[in-house]
Amino acid sequence: MEEAKGPVKHVLLAKFKDDVSPEKIKELINGYANLVNLIEPMKAFHWGTDVSIENLHKGFTHIFESTFESKEAVAEYIAHPVHVEFANLVDV
Amino acid sequence: MEEAKGPVKHVLLAKFKDDVSPEKIKELINGYANLVNLIEPMKAFHWGTDVSIENLHKGFTHIFESTFESKEAVAEYIAHPVHVEFANLVDV
Repeated sequence: MEEAKGPVKHVLLAKFKDDVSPEKIKELINGYANLVNLIEPMKAFHWGTDVSIENLHKGFTHIFESTFESKEAVAEYIAHPVHVEFANLVDV
Repeated sequence: MEEAKGPVKHVLLAKFKDDVSPEKIKELINGYANLVNLIEPMKAFHWGTDVSIENLHKGFTHIFESTFESKEAVAEYIAHPVHVEFANLVDV
């Protein structure tokens, strides 16, 4: 396929284990949203919850979309200590 | 969680079987992109290919994002004969 040009979107689908409280989920989302203030190459952040009616969401309840200017910027984000610290809070 | 407000995004991750040719994939993507011209409630369409380096993409190679003004608009899109015809071309 063609090489990616222009913005690169990092898209994460998530589901949470039953024992994760709504407060904990809110805290994780707030922490994720705050990365945009702390990690320079992360240019925008949007998230939402599943409202689909097609029953094709495979149990995923949340989506998180971060915007970068290049693949290199994504790599910088992934390696950023603040991201590493945040990612360690979450099972993937 | 809170009720969805504002735009509703329809996000589809895709992978193709090995016997689907690059030409066929291009044709399907063009057909998908063309829905925005044919289905009024579909307000925008973006797509891209996987360029991730985290090895968490679970074999999905393509992402398609359509934008709607409400959940009702998504329902209208899903039921639209042009969408139904297109969806029948694709295994889910």
